[in-house]
Amino acid sequence: MLERFGHGGDLESAAEIYGRSEFLDFSANINPLGPPSSVMEQLKNALPSIIRYPDPGHRGLKELLGSKLGIRSDQLCIGNGAAECMALILLGLHPDQVGIVEPCFSEYRQLSEQFGAHVRSVYGTQANGWRAEAAEIEGLLQDVDLLFIGQPNNPNGIQYDLETMRRLAGEAERCGTYLVVDEAFIDFIPEEDRQTLQSELERYPHTILVRSMTKFYAIPGLRLGYAAAHPDVVQAMTSKQVTWSVNGLALLAGEACLNSGEDYERETIKLIAEQRAFLISGLRKLGCKVSEGEANFLLVGLPAPWTAEKMQTEMGRRGVLIRSCAMYPGLGEEYVRVAVKAQDANQQLLKTMAEVLDVLENP
Amino acid sequence: MLERFGHGGDLESAAEIYGRSEFLDFSANINPLGPPSSVMEQLKNALPSIIRYPDPGHRGLKELLGSKLGIRSDQLCIGNGAAECMALILLGLHPDQVGIVEPCFSEYRQLSEQFGAHVRSVYGTQANGWRAEAAEIEGLLQDVDLLFIGQPNNPNGIQYDLETMRRLAGEAERCGTYLVVDEAFIDFIPEEDRQTLQSELERYPHTILVRSMTKFYAIPGLRLGYAAAHPDVVQAMTSKQVTWSVNGLALLAGEACLNSGEDYERETIKLIAEQRAFLISGLRKLGCKVSEGEANFLLVGLPAPWTAEKMQTEMGRRGVLIRSCAMYPGLGEEYVRVAVKAQDANQQLLKTMAEVLDVLENP
Repeated sequence: MLERFGHGGDLESAAEIYGRSEFLDFSANINPLGPPSSVMEQLKNALPSIIRYPDPGHRGLKELLGSKLGIRSDQLCIGNGAAECMALILLGLHPDQVGIVEPCFSEYRQLSEQFGAHVRSVYGTQANGWRAEAAEIEGLLQDVDLLFIGQPNNPNGIQYDLETMRRLAGEAERCGTYLVVDEAFIDFIPEEDRQTLQSELERYPHTILVRSMTKFYAIPGLRLGYAAAHPDVVQAMTSKQVTWSVNGLALLAGEACLNSGEDYERETIKLIAEQRAFLISGLRKLGCKVSEGEANFLLVGLPAPWTAEKMQTEMGRRGVLIRSCAMYPGLGEEYVRVAVKAQDANQQLLKTMAEVLDVLENP
Repeated sequence: MLERFGHGGDLESAAEIYGRSEFLDFSANINPLGPPSSVMEQLKNALPSIIRYPDPGHRGLKELLGSKLGIRSDQLCIGNGAAECMALILLGLHPDQVGIVEPCFSEYRQLSEQFGAHVRSVYGTQANGWRAEAAEIEGLLQDVDLLFIGQPNNPNGIQYDLETMRRLAGEAERCGTYLVVDEAFIDFIPEEDRQTLQSELERYPHTILVRSMTKFYAIPGLRLGYAAAHPDVVQAMTSKQVTWSVNGLALLAGEACLNSGEDYERETIKLIAEQRAFLISGLRKLGCKVSEGEANFLLVGLPAPWTAEKMQTEMGRRGVLIRSCAMYPGLGEEYVRVAVKAQDANQQLLKTMAEVLDVLENP
């Protein structure tokens, strides 16, 4: 199985399975523009700095990030990827019962169980635009100590509207339950459309926002994420963080990304919107059911009798990696996820999938 | 205090405290040769690879490392620095009682308490060459679930001989106690002098060796360490590791370091031996008590009435950073630790310390 480590983007496993080394990778959701060119230039110049320990206080990045987000440094925890932030939340707050809204990022369950919590789910359904009912999520908030929700949610790209998020955050305060909003992909959404409680954190001390800097800025190899939350939560998280957990080049790249200017952000958001529409239309023409998400990836139901496993194998042999979603609770075995990439790559995806569909019809 | 984050090498805090940005840093124990030049070259060429996720299975590095050490991949856990390996050991084996041999690396206690264990100590004393009695360590092994011991030990650079290590490992088996041998600095010791159980791990399934690759290869900014242990221990550790915890450039640098040839290793070991002797002699001429260690750092007792804090401040103002050891249990407030660096730097250390000592005598 391509996802033997639980995730997309595993090119080493792909090479072992498909016997080739070059792939167009739609299984990981990384900005197709690559990192801002100024970031690569600064990293090259900063390479000699690896002879020094990273700043264990993450001071430079926290200051820049705080000023960009309009929050204080003591509301920020910098992590070795968003995944470490989630682990630190669990280690720092040690919930006994964790709620999740399926289908969702597999690490919510994986990390919760890894650190000893019991996991309970509610489900978004296709009939409801892949959203779970707000009342159901509220009910779950009452029963658990901490709840993870993706915004936009992986793998379907849906957002809950701001009123719903306020309602959930308010209910979390009432119950004393922590609400962890995973906003790893929210930067791909135009600012005016982002349904985030970022500017209202003071009102919701049990709400924790988790963000990734590696997806939007295309630096997943370096690992960088952060959480924005009440200072007490940040303190609980950092008390469980291993010293120097965030490496020096990641800190430096993070600062360089935040300083790289708004053109890159605008260009990315425009490209993703255009290419998402292009992919949706192309995939539908091939007979797929495509959910309307707002993120830089799409949840795709393959036409019968195709399964994710069969399609992934056929595409992988042809050098195109897609993410099987058959293992997501709440999804059937016909679901795959594809990243939104640049035009040429997206055309290649559609062309390859058309070929594969054709092979089966005329074997 | 310079060690506000608990460790040396914190140049950001130094800049805040001493109001300057350039320092000769003797507070962190990093190979003064810097990384092998081939490693820097390969890192520069590999920078574009940060757009991909790291290999979550650490397959390439494990294979190289296993073949260098003569052990199997399933006996290796690659970590985001040796510190993460220690954290994973504690999270994976969840000891209730942890033993440590003081004075020692502060993270043994810090991480143990962070993850809920109680810590009990025995002490090495100056009278006994800074070693604890083997019988005392054995006694502690009987009382705890896991014991950390440094080999060579930080901050005094002492090794226990191989017979003692076998005796401790044997006793650990008898008691069912895990023996964690921190060999973060062992690569600086000539191979024939290393007192390591590396080739005898099969006999001691409760013994875990922890190594760092960032000190010897001078890449602390990238974070890279590993543990060698029984496959069941490795499995327990990786079950608590966050996916992609080890970043892609660290993995690549680790492979490049292992491929960089033996000249760099020989040159480093020769330089450290020569310069350690030079520093010991120079520091003693200044009236310091210097312990005979085998590592790339020295534990130094300052002449009365100097305290570590006062000396650190005076040296810091002059652009030379040293590590205060006043906070190490088992050491008095007159102890500092200095790294062994290259000749020019070491001369500068001695010159600056001579100036400082002179200032106090003729204020």
